[in-house]
Amino acid sequence: MTLQPKRTVNELKELRALTGDENGAQRVCWTDTWAKARAWMRDKLAELPVEITIDEAGNQWATLKGKSDKAMLIGGHIDSVPNGGWLDGCLNVLAGLEVLRRIASEGTPPVTVRLVDWADEEGARFGRSLFGSSAASGTLNPDEVRGLTDRDGIKWPDALAQHGVDLDRAREAGKQLANAAAYLELHIEQGPVLESLNLPLGVVLGTFGVERHRITWRGQAAHAGSTPMDKRRDALAGAAKLALEIRPIAQRIGDGAVCTSGGVVCKPGIVTSVVETAEQLLDQRHLDATKLASMLDEAKAASQRFAAEENISVEWERLWQIEPILFHPQLIEFADEAIRETCGVSHRLPSGPLHDAAEVARAGVPTIMLFAQSLRGLSHTKVEDTQEEHLELSVQALDRLASKTMAWLAEGE
Amino acid sequence: MTLQPKRTVNELKELRALTGDENGAQRVCWTDTWAKARAWMRDKLAELPVEITIDEAGNQWATLKGKSDKAMLIGGHIDSVPNGGWLDGCLNVLAGLEVLRRIASEGTPPVTVRLVDWADEEGARFGRSLFGSSAASGTLNPDEVRGLTDRDGIKWPDALAQHGVDLDRAREAGKQLANAAAYLELHIEQGPVLESLNLPLGVVLGTFGVERHRITWRGQAAHAGSTPMDKRRDALAGAAKLALEIRPIAQRIGDGAVCTSGGVVCKPGIVTSVVETAEQLLDQRHLDATKLASMLDEAKAASQRFAAEENISVEWERLWQIEPILFHPQLIEFADEAIRETCGVSHRLPSGPLHDAAEVARAGVPTIMLFAQSLRGLSHTKVEDTQEEHLELSVQALDRLASKTMAWLAEGE
Repeated sequence: MTLQPKRTVNELKELRALTGDENGAQRVCWTDTWAKARAWMRDKLAELPVEITIDEAGNQWATLKGKSDKAMLIGGHIDSVPNGGWLDGCLNVLAGLEVLRRIASEGTPPVTVRLVDWADEEGARFGRSLFGSSAASGTLNPDEVRGLTDRDGIKWPDALAQHGVDLDRAREAGKQLANAAAYLELHIEQGPVLESLNLPLGVVLGTFGVERHRITWRGQAAHAGSTPMDKRRDALAGAAKLALEIRPIAQRIGDGAVCTSGGVVCKPGIVTSVVETAEQLLDQRHLDATKLASMLDEAKAASQRFAAEENISVEWERLWQIEPILFHPQLIEFADEAIRETCGVSHRLPSGPLHDAAEVARAGVPTIMLFAQSLRGLSHTKVEDTQEEHLELSVQALDRLASKTMAWLAEGE
Repeated sequence: MTLQPKRTVNELKELRALTGDENGAQRVCWTDTWAKARAWMRDKLAELPVEITIDEAGNQWATLKGKSDKAMLIGGHIDSVPNGGWLDGCLNVLAGLEVLRRIASEGTPPVTVRLVDWADEEGARFGRSLFGSSAASGTLNPDEVRGLTDRDGIKWPDALAQHGVDLDRAREAGKQLANAAAYLELHIEQGPVLESLNLPLGVVLGTFGVERHRITWRGQAAHAGSTPMDKRRDALAGAAKLALEIRPIAQRIGDGAVCTSGGVVCKPGIVTSVVETAEQLLDQRHLDATKLASMLDEAKAASQRFAAEENISVEWERLWQIEPILFHPQLIEFADEAIRETCGVSHRLPSGPLHDAAEVARAGVPTIMLFAQSLRGLSHTKVEDTQEEHLELSVQALDRLASKTMAWLAEGE
């Protein structure tokens, strides 16, 4: 049986009809709609000579036994954000299904092939993303998430239990990675780079390291009418200078550095007063840990300079950080080849968003991702879209990548 | 009887004890505490040969008949903001009382002298300041304020009626200004200028014209990780540039120009997204109408430039404006002399905040204000303060100014 990429597009539409509404996809993890999507997926898998299992973290696996126990994993997530798009996550689950069909049709593969649907990539209900993959990689700390509740006050452990998951045993999913020798993930880009280059597909070099801070500037509230300009201590001036300065810093650091001041909250925030306190959000990302650290250092130094210039104070509070995760050099080469064979031109780019692939890579499994072009860079909205032609090309490229990877793994036997 | 400035300080403390609490002054207009303060004031005035009346806008007048009907007015306001200071407004009511005592002790003055306690200068309960003086000047439009309610939902007309004021007749208070030939007002500066110059007293040149706008910048929300820097349309960048640019604009315009970006509200305002919409508050003030207009024009031109640079849009919405109000040249000279005679050095400065004096000036009455130094520029708080020595000097200066003004008015007879 040959690969039928059009079938993947049709199955994506079938899933959308089954689990979406007029506002978009509704496959929020640990809900009935999500469970319905998974049951639908199991029906599809049941036609193949695979074993279907669900691990201690709720990840759903389909295993096609090969001549070797060494396993090539293809992974995605069928869960979505509320009012989400029709491709985010499920594209790879269904592309992986099609690749599995093609491999299974050719008899016992040289290595074991496993398709995994990770549980709760989005973290949409309880605010913690990458649940299933971080349980498998061992970075999940049950005590850090035990207290999380959804907006109805339901505790995460209780919602997990309803779906057969015991939070305290979730990390036992780690044994699923014991024989994993490679991990492949196809995803929509969720950004504008490939579209701006007019390219359907790209190779992902890794996921950005992230430094996320809240910066608090403190000056002095003062009457907008009675306070001369040279007597002011304006907290907003510090935040404004930094919001602008992070951009030349990112340009100097280069190599795809991005940084974002996502907002400033001003107090008292009224038209008749100089701003006393400005709380600024800053997100900085880079694929190179050293460059990320430099970018942070430069921003901190600039903030000290601005505080001195404005006679205000500045304080940094780290909200979150994660180091960059680089994908496997050999798999990058294979992915490049697979894309060039599929559509002539490839492009290498980092991933801004995190993905389950990052967790698998952290566990030491050689990992690679492919991106399919996103229209207008939009995601996490019902208007998320990709040309169907590009979706079909992405299934072909994943299939070629799988073949190359299997051959490579078989060589090592 | 000679002037006793210490008595004014003591009476300010007496009023504070009667109508304040541990959080500060509580003489919010149209409340029982305010009515109590006014009754206390009437008891003081009752010892003088004055006629006490309350006009249609609730302004309380004490009239010392002179040889001429032509009247010199001394005005202030006994109402305060909630948790206010011990000097804002009532300093002049009590300094005026002391000056009235001195004048009355010398027999019938050449012109009529009237002390007015304006109703609801602060607008603390219904959000509209200068009620009594704007009713007298004729700038109050009853239909614009009829629907105002306090935070308990009580309508302003009902609260006024409880204190004997019929909103639809309030502008009949205008006839109180028929014979007014000069208006004097002493107030604390509520700003840091005199303190920074180490001067107790200053002459006020007029009140600033004000241009107040909400500026809306619109870009495009985009993922902080997946959107390269050169693909962004960041609304915050426009607001940040303008928050900084208004300062060199004010410096170029000069002559005491002030401008304030009181806050920026960012949407979606999350750490993982480029800012799509930034709503910025802008307040610009100048004593010269032409320069104020130039300052506004320059800011608008700069905003258009920034919008083009950032590939975002910008929209201006006027929230409020008032033209500059200049005080009377001859009275400015008299005030300067009075201050120099009192403490050696005078200083001329504009008033950032509005005052009842501005309304009286708009009605065509020759008007002047004196400022007494404020400590740390603080006002509208219980920590508002002025050195007692400076308060005493301010009573002396007001008294000298009153004498000079009476002589000037008498000359004209």
